[in-house]
Amino acid sequence: MPRTDFARIRCPVARAMEVLGERWSILVMREAFYGTTRFDDFARHLGIATNILSARLAKLVEHDLLERVPEGARHAYRLTEKGGAFFPVFLALKGWSDRWMAGPEGQAMCLLDAGTGEEVVCPPPLDSAGRPLTPEGIRLVPGPAASEAMRRRFPGTAHG
Amino acid sequence: MPRTDFARIRCPVARAMEVLGERWSILVMREAFYGTTRFDDFARHLGIATNILSARLAKLVEHDLLERVPEGARHAYRLTEKGGAFFPVFLALKGWSDRWMAGPEGQAMCLLDAGTGEEVVCPPPLDSAGRPLTPEGIRLVPGPAASEAMRRRFPGTAHG
Repeated sequence: MPRTDFARIRCPVARAMEVLGERWSILVMREAFYGTTRFDDFARHLGIATNILSARLAKLVEHDLLERVPEGARHAYRLTEKGGAFFPVFLALKGWSDRWMAGPEGQAMCLLDAGTGEEVVCPPPLDSAGRPLTPEGIRLVPGPAASEAMRRRFPGTAHG
Repeated sequence: MPRTDFARIRCPVARAMEVLGERWSILVMREAFYGTTRFDDFARHLGIATNILSARLAKLVEHDLLERVPEGARHAYRLTEKGGAFFPVFLALKGWSDRWMAGPEGQAMCLLDAGTGEEVVCPPPLDSAGRPLTPEGIRLVPGPAASEAMRRRFPGTAHG
């Protein structure tokens, strides 16, 4: 079976995985959120092979999460609006990872609100009764980009 | 350079990427959140080669996001507590993807609160002044599992 081209799939999450569904990509974004802008600094902080780093940065630039801008004699990688908007997703992922993937040592990094010094947490989505929303608490309805298969599978509408 | 073993890295986000940093893994979790439990249904809904699906499911079971339980003559894959706790991360990713990765057709699927019919949204993390938190609004301090390199790079402490 040929490798699926996720970018041609209409599900936006699948498209996002075309850019970010690779073990290094989100760690490159982590470094960008932690203030790294230089190729050499990404390479050193991540301990990543430079050919892989080049490919990941190129894809993040291609999909407009980072931009490559001249800075002095070299270049810097800066977060775009789209890349900056990924920060809450990273925070949600970090919160889950710190809770469920940490070893006995605990967190590697704490993110504090610079204004208050309080640890930053992602507020959980709540249902209408104020309880944490679970998969059982949602109803799935096809959106405008839903495939025929999705429409057959989830026959409801937003109003039905 | 040998392939980095992310599971041995102390950063929990990097460990999470060992499990989820692969283009299909989060889509398998999406299907689990959408109610899929059977191998054949995962395969059909995702359009994924069965050998790849087997490997992804095995890894999600190995890391306790799904459990494989007998159901009738076959087996079902059910979300564990740890897997269910990933739902807010998926919602955050879906929200970003729908906003930034959708094609002109828009959303593929809408997730509605089953109680109210309102679309489910992930509340954005806010700073102490109630504004959306950005990478510039955070202060990074090493946690207990921080490497020596991380401590040198971010010399602050939670109290300093």
